[in-house]
Order: sequence, then structure tokens, then C-alpha cells
Amino acid sequence: MTDSKFVYAFADGFAEGSAEMTDLLGGKGANLAEMCRMGLRVPPGFTLTSDVCTFYNANEGAFPDGLKAEVEDAMALLSQDMGLYLGDEEKPLLVSVRSGARASMPGMMDTVLNLGLNDVTVAALAGKTGDARFAWDSYRRFQQMYGDVVMGISHDFFEDIIDDYKFENALSLDADLEADDWQEISSKFAEMIEREAGQPFPQDPQEQLWGAIGAVCNSWNNQRATTYRRLHDIPDEWGTAVTIQSMVFGNLGDKSATGVAFTRNPSTGEDALYGEYLMNAQGEDVVAGIRTPLYLTKAAREAAQMEDLSLEEELPDVHGELIEVFKRLESHFKDMQDVEFTVQNGRVFILQARAGKRTVEAAIKIAVDMVAEGMIDETEALLRIEPASLEHLLHPTLDPRARMKVLTKGLPASPGAASGEIAFSADRAEALAALGKDVVLVRMETSPEDIHGMYAARAILTSRGGMTSHAAVVARGLGRPCVSGAGQLHIDIDRRTAQVEKHELKEGDVITVDGTSGRIMLGAVPTLEAELTGDFGSLMAWADARRTMGIRTNAETARDAERALRFGAEGIGLCRTEHMFFDPARIALVREMILADNAPMREKVLDQLMPMQRDDFASLFKTMGTRPVTIRLLDPPLHEFLPHADDDISALAEALGQTQEQLRWRIGELEESNPMLGHRGSRLGITAPEIYAMQLAAIFAAMKANKGKTPVEIMFPLIIDVAELRILKALVPPLAAEYGIADEAYQIGTMIEVPRAAMVADELAEEAVFFSFGTNDLTQTALGVSRDDAARFLPAYVSQGIMEKDPFASFDVAGVGPIVQMAADKGRAVRPELKLGICGEHGGDPGSIAAFYQMGFDYVSCSPFRVPIARLAAAQAAIKSGK
Amino acid sequence: MTDSKFVYAFADGFAEGSAEMTDLLGGKGANLAEMCRMGLRVPPGFTLTSDVCTFYNANEGAFPDGLKAEVEDAMALLSQDMGLYLGDEEKPLLVSVRSGARASMPGMMDTVLNLGLNDVTVAALAGKTGDARFAWDSYRRFQQMYGDVVMGISHDFFEDIIDDYKFENALSLDADLEADDWQEISSKFAEMIEREAGQPFPQDPQEQLWGAIGAVCNSWNNQRATTYRRLHDIPDEWGTAVTIQSMVFGNLGDKSATGVAFTRNPSTGEDALYGEYLMNAQGEDVVAGIRTPLYLTKAAREAAQMEDLSLEEELPDVHGELIEVFKRLESHFKDMQDVEFTVQNGRVFILQARAGKRTVEAAIKIAVDMVAEGMIDETEALLRIEPASLEHLLHPTLDPRARMKVLTKGLPASPGAASGEIAFSADRAEALAALGKDVVLVRMETSPEDIHGMYAARAILTSRGGMTSHAAVVARGLGRPCVSGAGQLHIDIDRRTAQVEKHELKEGDVITVDGTSGRIMLGAVPTLEAELTGDFGSLMAWADARRTMGIRTNAETARDAERALRFGAEGIGLCRTEHMFFDPARIALVREMILADNAPMREKVLDQLMPMQRDDFASLFKTMGTRPVTIRLLDPPLHEFLPHADDDISALAEALGQTQEQLRWRIGELEESNPMLGHRGSRLGITAPEIYAMQLAAIFAAMKANKGKTPVEIMFPLIIDVAELRILKALVPPLAAEYGIADEAYQIGTMIEVPRAAMVADELAEEAVFFSFGTNDLTQTALGVSRDDAARFLPAYVSQGIMEKDPFASFDVAGVGPIVQMAADKGRAVRPELKLGICGEHGGDPGSIAAFYQMGFDYVSCSPFRVPIARLAAAQAAIKSGK
Repeated sequence: MTDSKFVYAFADGFAEGSAEMTDLLGGKGANLAEMCRMGLRVPPGFTLTSDVCTFYNANEGAFPDGLKAEVEDAMALLSQDMGLYLGDEEKPLLVSVRSGARASMPGMMDTVLNLGLNDVTVAALAGKTGDARFAWDSYRRFQQMYGDVVMGISHDFFEDIIDDYKFENALSLDADLEADDWQEISSKFAEMIEREAGQPFPQDPQEQLWGAIGAVCNSWNNQRATTYRRLHDIPDEWGTAVTIQSMVFGNLGDKSATGVAFTRNPSTGEDALYGEYLMNAQGEDVVAGIRTPLYLTKAAREAAQMEDLSLEEELPDVHGELIEVFKRLESHFKDMQDVEFTVQNGRVFILQARAGKRTVEAAIKIAVDMVAEGMIDETEALLRIEPASLEHLLHPTLDPRARMKVLTKGLPASPGAASGEIAFSADRAEALAALGKDVVLVRMETSPEDIHGMYAARAILTSRGGMTSHAAVVARGLGRPCVSGAGQLHIDIDRRTAQVEKHELKEGDVITVDGTSGRIMLGAVPTLEAELTGDFGSLMAWADARRTMGIRTNAETARDAERALRFGAEGIGLCRTEHMFFDPARIALVREMILADNAPMREKVLDQLMPMQRDDFASLFKTMGTRPVTIRLLDPPLHEFLPHADDDISALAEALGQTQEQLRWRIGELEESNPMLGHRGSRLGITAPEIYAMQLAAIFAAMKANKGKTPVEIMFPLIIDVAELRILKALVPPLAAEYGIADEAYQIGTMIEVPRAAMVADELAEEAVFFSFGTNDLTQTALGVSRDDAARFLPAYVSQGIMEKDPFASFDVAGVGPIVQMAADKGRAVRPELKLGICGEHGGDPGSIAAFYQMGFDYVSCSPFRVPIARLAAAQAAIKSGK
Repeated sequence: MTDSKFVYAFADGFAEGSAEMTDLLGGKGANLAEMCRMGLRVPPGFTLTSDVCTFYNANEGAFPDGLKAEVEDAMALLSQDMGLYLGDEEKPLLVSVRSGARASMPGMMDTVLNLGLNDVTVAALAGKTGDARFAWDSYRRFQQMYGDVVMGISHDFFEDIIDDYKFENALSLDADLEADDWQEISSKFAEMIEREAGQPFPQDPQEQLWGAIGAVCNSWNNQRATTYRRLHDIPDEWGTAVTIQSMVFGNLGDKSATGVAFTRNPSTGEDALYGEYLMNAQGEDVVAGIRTPLYLTKAAREAAQMEDLSLEEELPDVHGELIEVFKRLESHFKDMQDVEFTVQNGRVFILQARAGKRTVEAAIKIAVDMVAEGMIDETEALLRIEPASLEHLLHPTLDPRARMKVLTKGLPASPGAASGEIAFSADRAEALAALGKDVVLVRMETSPEDIHGMYAARAILTSRGGMTSHAAVVARGLGRPCVSGAGQLHIDIDRRTAQVEKHELKEGDVITVDGTSGRIMLGAVPTLEAELTGDFGSLMAWADARRTMGIRTNAETARDAERALRFGAEGIGLCRTEHMFFDPARIALVREMILADNAPMREKVLDQLMPMQRDDFASLFKTMGTRPVTIRLLDPPLHEFLPHADDDISALAEALGQTQEQLRWRIGELEESNPMLGHRGSRLGITAPEIYAMQLAAIFAAMKANKGKTPVEIMFPLIIDVAELRILKALVPPLAAEYGIADEAYQIGTMIEVPRAAMVADELAEEAVFFSFGTNDLTQTALGVSRDDAARFLPAYVSQGIMEKDPFASFDVAGVGPIVQMAADKGRAVRPELKLGICGEHGGDPGSIAAFYQMGFDYVSCSPFRVPIARLAAAQAAIKSGK
């Protein structure tokens, strides 16, 4: 026992506890005490400390010495405060008994409401409220709850009695039952309880009280709570506090009411009271939807053209008091509050106040407004916004006012909304796009050879595959909305149609894909573009002032680079040169290059590709100006560029002057068992240096045209040994010299994307001036998990709690973190000024960004749409680390 | 300068240097000094220290002060000793000038022979030897060598003069040229040298000497030598010593001779003089093959039924002296010696002595004999045998006396030799084997579905794939001889024939596969079985007494286990339960299990598989007795068990009552992009626990039948997180209890085969009592290299020096080592008694075994044939670490 005081009372303007005492009183108890201290009218009560629970569970259900006396004292105070008394035949006090631990464990433990009701007090309640039905319904609910929680009688026994009664009396809904019906059910409950429990339902409110306290303490150790604690790392020894609080009633006549309110508009953030109420009603009635709740303010009522009076008009004093209360709550808790209140005979009781949930738009407006109001500072404002929530703002969104017909749903694989004509193949998508049409590419699943079509499309829809399927990953990288795994969609690729239940979609039909929600709509639904000015702009400026980590983007085209600049990117952290190879204008040349029989033939094709790639780089450099551009040389296995569909193969065979059979044989020869671990990255550079030489020449030619304005960083992918890096580095200076580029004008670095590279990072740092971590591949190799195949088992791993999150979405700090840390440490030991960056999908994930900040990274690079998220996440990481 | 003495003389019975002084005198200089100290007659001379070379190269070709005087003194001593003088018109001294570094750098630096010849001394040499042709030939060779090495004149100029001379005189072979011819060529050489070099060929032997010394010093920095040092980690600052030694001649009449000898038979190890000689000849003549060398001993001559007298008969005194010299050399160097000698007018000169190369059979016999002779101890004997060389002894080998017709060659992928009838499919191989025939499985390449056929075959031959292809890896694991990548073999699978040039092979034709050499022979070539007793047995017993690491084997069948026991295995370190699934009797059931639509259907099939697997375990336990058996639960992706060939699919479809189309669709659905990183290992255990439950039940049922005699270790494959291990571990105790097996009767451990497992090894060690490292998969994931695809680039990596060796054959200490070490350290920090073992292919590689010993491993496990290699390697590792 850490304290000899077990009971902390709270009442009007007075409380023994406070907000700081969550350890002892739990979140709920401490918050109620705090509101009393503020002078708010809260239904009075008292809280038993978590020590009581701990003692109770450690001592076979015994309570500590002295507790009884303390509870009696607190109960006396409470009765006096309310003018009501437990078990009193005329003025019965009713209380709730609730759990409340130091950390929120929503719904895991037990609660008993309406305690104090018995065969006598139920009549007093009926008289006092003038609502016999309410009184008997409350009583039977109390029997049911207490019977279950304290006496251990299964729900089914209670439900059976109600069902039988309804059947016998030809009633179907609870609402059809009157006071008499509930009274009869209540007596049937009493009989059943005595039969099942071997003892009668306790009529003595004191017995009820101690039974409920014990049961709530006991519920700390039920199955649900234990599992929840294990999953959330909550220590078993904390225990729960128990709060006993008087019940209040909003249904005691025309000076009574109940309602919920947000202190600001949770949808827009506007500084105006927002919420609803019901006259002469219980809190349940607002939720149950039997009566229509009304507006709080006259302005809101008028805006909605409602006739029923607002609270402001109906009970102006109450409204005035509430406005005061809400102001005080906001200025006390420094945040918009979500408040439950009950008006009992004109007296306003605050039942609960907590930070209100809000849309991201509202969150931004409220945070920025509160800074202007001097309520919080900029740093606090930054911490108020969940970075990931910004995603929703950055992509085009469905116009909420638009009418739409939802056809089917899939997984929300890449956010944003777009409409277009259906194309069932990548080539068709490209052809339609070339005609200036908006296209949605619809496939069973996508493969690397579809990339030109994905690129040409405005959105992608697949009937198979998960959140980490090829389609999902590529779409996110390209910034295209994508819905994957829409299982109800049956695609008949031969007939070029898709069936959803009875509806048939043909090529050319227009659909809308909402990658944010996973919905597919028939026709073109209007969308809204992202607005990056105003409050959002202020917030981003504050973030930039506080963050220390650079934010770059992954981009290959001037268009993507422009968008990223608009979103605040400070450079390009990853230009995937192979994306340039997928361009339809050159894929045929790329295929010729791959299938060339020897180096001279290959070089001839490379000579044609060089000016194209040079122009790509030149346009990228022009867009980026003096901002750095990191270029990764060709990375994927060459066979990814080869065709697999029959049509494509026959076309290519014709172009090459080969038979289809010959071509298929060559393609088969290039196939790999595990392409992820195959002949790719710098391994291509070692075995076919002419490809990298072409790319390097293109880079230097573009630099020459650009007059060296853009700082260029060249990186070699999939490096595993310093010897590899040395051999490839040796290719560079002669080519630079050929274009008159000085060696100081560019930097050479390496990707770290397999564990071995991390192990030999000290050696690599001797040759590389920067490390860019490809955490996608590093996660695949460190975990031995292929992202393309993970859908078969990763969901089971997440649902069984083996992994908290998808390690491809959220960086695996425990498993991959040590490898990254080792590479960073080893590298910097050799080269203290070594630049460290991230260019995997994790570069745009807020939790991962915090981890990279801790590891001392210089920058993260992410897709254009994620740049603002990364800016905010980097600022939060810096703030939280106290720098 | 580290020493003020630059010159170390050696002569008959006297030397300033010794064998310990290799740092200063180089290997050659130190060894010559040592032999002089022993009193052996060595052509006298002196060695300039490596400091001279270092000084020379650091000071633009200047020699250190005092060197000249020291050389003059040494030269005077030498002249006095020989009675010959540099440049003397009657008694000219000829010397060689050779390089010799601390570490052997064969052929990398320059040498000058016959120095001292000029227009005058050449006549004296002719007179003295009575062989004018020899004298002039020697002179022109000296001109050529000196011209090239010292004066920098290209070889081509010399070759052109000889070619022109031959053409003009209608001569074709060097042997056709007489003394006059060489004399004329020599004068043409002199003219050409003066023209090309701008100065005449030096006639002054002193000038010749200093020119040669400088050139040899200089050659330390030539391209070849520099590259060699970089590749072999030899520091540039070492420098080379220079040895000047008098030339001796074996062609001065019938008391002169030259020869080479091994002090014991290098082929059998027999303790008998072995070698050959020529009377009145130069060393070159023995090598050139113009005259047939003769035997050294009478016994050898008679055994060979030769008429020409042996050295023993021709020059009995010389023979007697040599016998004495060889005895002294052996007892001095404690090893069999390979000796070059020259007899000049009855005087025996030893030109060189070094440890002789020998076959592994000879190596074992010599080592064991020398222990018996008291020359070396058992520890030294163990260090004398290269463990890898034993491989050759352990597999059946081609009878060397057999006649054979080699059809073609491929890569020696798995050692041993076997004959059998050709089968072109796994099913056919199995069917023929079932008829009791010996079968050779011949395929383009193999895939996992061929395993039953590989298992049934005596040997495997493929026309594609490298040393690490599926065929090679599986064959080594199964202990089957295998030749892979026999590119000249063209298989026509439809016609069931194979073509090698004009030869056609049909199914049923008998061939012999020699996996040790890569040769394929027509017909059945007789083979010899391994003999593991006698000297070999003694050596193994000594190894077992010294090693501290346990040696286990990878085996699934009683037959393999028996062989491994015969080879000295102490337990099973890896029983791959999936190999039991490939058994033809049950593959159909396995396929049904995989394609089952739901868990109950799957369990029904598993109920049929359980008794089969139980019997497998029972027979393994019976063979192993009280030795431990480590069982790995199912590891490969399920689709590996599914058929791909059209025949197989139609058969299975019929068995399942499905259409081929349906079945193909299901098979396609199960295919993976990167199966290595896919749904396999414990991931199967998590998503389909009924499979592991069946295997566990089979284990416990077999343990029950075996009365718990065999200690069983159960391991889960591909674990990446402790939560995974906990969930799977929870399956075990209830099943053990079902069969009455106490929890103490088995151990549970985990494989460490992906980097993440190593990173969280501390957590894993809380649940696992042993770690078994699957270094094959760990290498694949750490390097991001798929073994099946590596053949496309790994050879380039080895040949370009990026990797020293194939990392799948030889453990990658620099790249994967730190991961293994981290796992070992983290694991033992939590559980100090944690058992560490290796079960990858590296467990049988001597270099890798030494690395695992250093890391504190408890045991290695390897294929049965490699067990003796591992025993010896483990003993050497323990000896070398001084334990």
C-alpha cells in the first residue's frame, strides 16, 4: 500500500483529487476531480484509489482496513450534497460504479449503473420523474447489469425472459413495452436470479454497493482486460480505480434536458458552439434516435431552417451558463472539448469533457486559431496535428456535395479520387491517354510490364491483391489513386468486360475510383483539389522552422517534381531511372537492348536511348534548379521490361525479326526464381557496364546543358561490397571528363538496401559520400519477406499480434532498425560528414520518420503527395526530442 | 633502413643467414642459407636484403652506402669457394640473379641467368664443357633475358632475328640449330641491342651484375607484382631480396648429371626414393623431354622393366650421398621433400628443396608414418592434411585402372561416381529404380518437383545450371554424384533422347557420371568404394581427441543416417521433414492436403500422412539410438510440391476429380513472385497450424514407440519474431501430453536464417534452448542473392575479385559473419547455455568451420559424406586456436 487514504471525494467546487493524480484515481476519477476544482457542476461522488483494487485482487476479495469508514464518510457527504439518500423511500440516491485505469482501456472492464434501485426505490423514482416506464425500465436494466457483472448470471437468461414475454404478449420492439410490462419482467428477473444464483437479488443498497465495487475491482483481471494490457504494454500491477458518482436525470420536466456539444465545429473548425440537445430526456434518448435532437443555438437552427426551438431560445439561462462553462473548459484544457451535459431542474451538470475528435481540416483551423488567440504556441499547434491525417487533404477528394452511385468496394490502396474511361490493358490505357482521355486502368492484378499503362492512367483498379500488392505500391509511388482487391469485380479479359453483380462494365465506360475510401462509383463524380494555403500554409511554415531533417521527393518527371516543389520538397532524393525506360516511346528500344546478342549490338541501341534519357534529366534539372537531384542507376532485373502477354510478344517478335518461339525462349531464359534477389541493381552494372555508362553519359550531357546549376548525386543500387562500388565508380570520371564536367560537380554514393551492405558500411563509406537507405528492399531481405507475396500471411501476422503493423508501411524499428543504425554508425565512424537519407516508402510515414530522426538522418525522401506529411512529422520529431 | 648489413653470404657448410630470416632474405635466400648451415652442398652465393630493394625504389635507383663494398667482399668469397672468377678468360664464374620476397609471388618478378657470359667467357665455357653449342645457346639466352629485363628491349626483336635466321637457312626447330648458328644469332642480337638501346650489350660482368640487381629490385613494382600483392594482401613496403648464386653444370661429362627426387612416393606415400635423372645433362633437359629421364633406384628400374641403368647403378657414390642428403632434409624440415639436384664432376649440389606436393592418400600415409617414426606428433599430422582433400576419398571413385570413353564434360557439381540407365523424368527414374535398376536422372535442369526422382537415382546429370543450381545443391545434400551444366548435351524431352555431337543417347542407355571431375562416360565404368580404416582411421581418431565442436549430419532416412554414423556423425543436426513429403508413396496425399479447400478436408488428409511420417521418424530414431536428432518442421512453400508438367497435372486433376483448368488455376494461385521470401517455414505454421500439429504428433508417436531413448530437438524454421515462436511453441505441450511424452523429453529451438532473427535473438533466446543457423538462407537474405539465380552474375563477381569465393560454398565471414556473431552474442547474453549449431552447406566447409569455431559454436551439421572433413576441420580449428 503506497497511501493510507483510499477515497477521494469530489463535489461542487471541491475535490480531494486533481488532473495530476491519474496514477491513483485513473483518468476518469482525476478528470472529474479537476472539473470540480474548476468550479464546474459535476454530479458529486468519490473515487476509490487503484490501491484498493490491487489489495482486493491480492487478498482474495478482502478490502483494506479503514476503507469501509472512508466510503461511509464520502457517501454521507454525497447524500448531503444531493439531498438524496441510498435506499430512501422518497428521496432515493442512485449512483453509478465505474472502472477507470491510469491508461484508457475502453470497454474492457465492468460498470454498474442505477445502483440504489430496489423494489421500494423504483416507485420513488417513478413518482419523482413522473415516468413509471422509465423507472421500471431502469430497474430491470440494473437487475440485468448487476446480475451479470456481480452475480455472474449469463445474459441469455435475461434475454430469454424478455423474448418469451414479447412472444406471449405479441410484442416485437422494446419500445412497444409499457411500464407494466417492464414491472412484470422485473419480477420474473428476480425469480430467475434467485433460482440461478441460489440467493435473492440484493435489496439492500449497501450490499449492492460493495458487491459492485468488488466486481469492478475484479474485472481488472478478466480475459479481455488482460489481453488488452498485454497488447498495449500496460503493467498488471497498476490496477483500476473505482468511481462512485450520483446519477442525474434530464427527464424531470420542462426545466430538464440533456445534450452533447463540441466547443468548436469539429467538421470545419469554426469557433461556434456545435451540438444537439433534447428537452426532458435522458442521455440515452439522444443516442437512440427515437426523438430528433435539436440545435443548441438559434443561428444553427435558422441555418437548418428548423422550427423546433434551440436550447438558446428554450432555456436561455442554461445556454448562457453552458457558453461560460465551455469557454472555461477550453481555456483550462487548451483544446476544443467534446462535452456531455444534463440539465436537471434547471441545474447544469457536466457529465464528461474530453478533447473532441475532429476532421483534419478542423484540426488545422483550430490549432492555428488557438495560436492567434494566444491559447497555445506554434510548437503545441504542430503537435496537435496527426501528420498522416494530412494525406486526406493533399489528394483530390470526392466533392462531399456530389451525388454518387457506389458500385462496389475494394481496399483503399492509394489515396485520392479520379474518374476516367475503363481500359483493360496497359497498352489500351496508354492509347486512350494519348487521345487526351482520362483513363482508369482495370486489371485482375498488375505486373511490372503494366507500368506504362499505370503511368498513363488517372487511377488504377484491381480485382486481386492487397494493400502491398504491385498495383498498390506502384500507384502510391506514382501518386495515382488505386483501389485494389475489389473481389466482387469479375473481369473477363477476353471479352474486355467486367461484371459487378448484375452490372456489366465495358471498355470506355466511365467510373470513379476513390482510393481514400476504397469505393468505386459509376460515372464521373466531381472532385476537389487540395488547397495548400491559409492555415495549412501557416502550419507548414512553422513546421519548416522547427525541423532539422531535410525533406526530398521521389520523382522522375518534371511534372512530379513540380508538384513536389509545390508541396515543399527541397530536392529529389530518388530518381528511378528505370521509370524512364517504361515510357512507351522507348520500351521497344529497351527490349531490343536487353535482347541484344552482344555488347556492340547493345551499345548501338544504347546510343539511341542516351539522348532520350539525357532530355529526361535535363528537364528534371531545369525544374529543380539549384536543388539537389539524386539519381539511381538502373535497378530492376532486365526481364521486368520484357513482354509477357501474347499480343505484346508477337509484336516484339515481329519487330526483332524473330519467331515467337525464339523470343519466348529468350524471355524464359531471362526469367528468375527470385527476381528480388536476382540479377539486378549494380549486378547489371558489373556484368553489362555499357548500360550504366549510357546512363552516366546522359546525366553528364544534361549537366552540361544545365551549366552545372543542379547539384547531382549519383547512386549505385543494391551494393553489397566495396569492391563492387570501386569497379563501378571507376566508370564515372572518364565519362564526366568527356562532357567537361569537373569531379567536384557531382557526388557518388550508394544505396544501403541489403543487410550485408550495412555490415560492411565502414568500407563502403570510404568510397561513398552519401548512403541512401532503400528500406523497402532492406525490409524484404532482413525479414525474408517478399512484398509481392506477403499478402498470403502478413494479415495473419498483424491480426495475431506478431507484428503490430505492416512492416512495409511502418518501419520495423526492432528488426530492421539495428541494421540501419549499424550502417549509420559504421559509415560515420569512417566519414563523419557522411550524408544519410531514406528513399523507401517509409520516408513518408510519420512514425518511421521519427525513428530516422533518432538515428541521425539528414533527410527523408518520399512521394510528392507525402512531402507535407514528412515536413510535419520531421518537425514533431525535432520538437519531441527537445531540440 | 632497419639494418646496416646488406649482404648475407652462404657457401658449403656456412651461412650468415638462416631459415628464420625470411623477412630480410626472402623465402629463397633464407632457405638456401639454411641448407648451407645444415652442411648440404649448395651452389654458393649471397643474398642482398629486402632493405636494399626498398632503398633502391625509394631513391630513384640509388644503392645504399656500403653496399658496393659488401658485394665485392661476398663476390670474392664466392670466387674463392668456386675457384672461378667473374669475367675470367679461362675460369669464368657464371651466376644467377633472382628475386625472392617474404611471401611467395611465383613468376611475378624478374630473374637473370648465366650472368658473366660475354664474347670472351663464352669461349671459355665452350672449352670447359666441351659443348660449344651449349655455350653459345647459353650466351644468346643471357643476351635475350638481360636485354629484356635490364635494357627494356621487347622480346619480339629477339624472336624476329631467330625466325629470320631459321627462314633464311631453311631450319625449323631450335634443336636443328648448331653452335655456329647460335654464334651468328648472338652477334645479330648484339647489333640489334646496340641499335635499339642506343648502347652496346655490356661486356663487363660487373656492369652486368649491377644492372641485373637494379632490374630485379625494380621488378617489385611492375604491374604483375603490384596486382598480385593487392589481391593477396601483401604490403608494398616489404620489398624483395636479391640472391646472387653461382651456376653449376650437370653436363660436364660422365661424372655429371641432373635430376629431381621426392623423398617418399608422392602418389602412395610409400617410404621409398622416387624421381628421375639424366646423365651429362642440364636441368632443362629433364623438363624438355628430348631425352627420356631414368629411374633413381635399381628397384624402381627393375619394377618398370627398363634397361638403362639407374643412378644407383651408374653413380653409386652419388646415389649414396643423395640418400644421406634426403634423410637429413626430411629430418630437418620434418616433411617429405621435393628436391632438385645437379652433379657436377661427381660433386652433388642441391639446387632447391621444398615440401613436395602429394595426393591425399600419400599425405595421410606420410603423416601417420612420420608420427610412428617419431618425426612429428599427432597434432602436427592433423595440420598436414587439407580437410577438403578428404572429399576425394569419401565418395566412390572411378577405378583408375578402368578403360573409359569420355562422352562430354560438365561442372563437377557433387562428387562421387556412379553408373546407371538414363531416365529423362523423375517419374521414370523412380519407376526404373523400383524395378531394382540403377538409374541416372538426366534433365535440362531440375526443380523441386523432381526430388523424388533425384532421390531414386544413383546420379544426376543436367545440361543447364551451375555449381549452385537446384540440381547441384540438392544432389550434394542427398549425397548423389552430379554433373551440371553439360552444355554440349542437347536433350529432346519429347523424343526422350539426348544428343552429344553425333552420339545419340536413349532412355535405358547406361552412362557413368563422375561428379568429382565433371566427366560423363559411356557404359558402366567400375568404381572403388571409400576405405575408412587404417591410416585414415588413425587420423580421424586423433582428430576426435582434439576437437571440441560436435559434428552432426543432415539426414532424413535411416540409410543416410547409417552412412553418417559410419563416417563418425554424433547426431542429426537437420532432419528436413519435407524430404519425407517428396516420397512417391505420399506425394499424391501431400498434394491433396495442399489443395484442400478448408481445414477439415486438410486434416482428413493429414490423418493419413501422420502414420507415414511417424514411421519415418521411428526408423530414424532406431538408427540413431541415444544420439540427438534435430527435426525441422515443414519449411518450403507448399507450391513446391505441386506438379508443373502437363502429364502430372492431368494425373492429379483426375485424382482430385477436377478439370485440368481448375487445377491449373489453383496452382497458379499458389505461385509466388519470390518463393524464397514467401509463404513458407513457420509462416505455414501460423496460417495452417494443422500441418505442424500433424508433424508434432508424428514425432511424439515415434518417441513413444522408441521409449524416449533418442533425445529429440524440434525446431521451427524461418522465425522472425518471438511472438511467432510463442504461438507455435504453444502447439507442442498438448500434443506431447497426448502421447505421454514429458516436456523434459524434448527441446524446442529455432532456426536463425534471416537477418531479423539475429537482430531479435535476445528475445528468441527466451523461448528457444538452441539456435540452428541456416546459413544458406541467411546468406541469400543478407546478400540479397538468390542461389538459384546467382549463376548469372556470381561468376563475374568471383572473377573480378569482388568476392573471393562463392559465398554459398564458403561462409562470408565479413558480410554474414557479423550477423551470426550478433545472434550468438545476444542469445547467450540471455541464455548462457544456449546451444549453437550450423545446418547449412557451410557446416561441411573447412574454412567456414574454423569461423564457426571462433564464434563459439557447439556443433556443425553437414551431409554424411562431409562428416570426416568436418571432424578434421574442427580439430584443426581447435589446434590453431591453441586450445
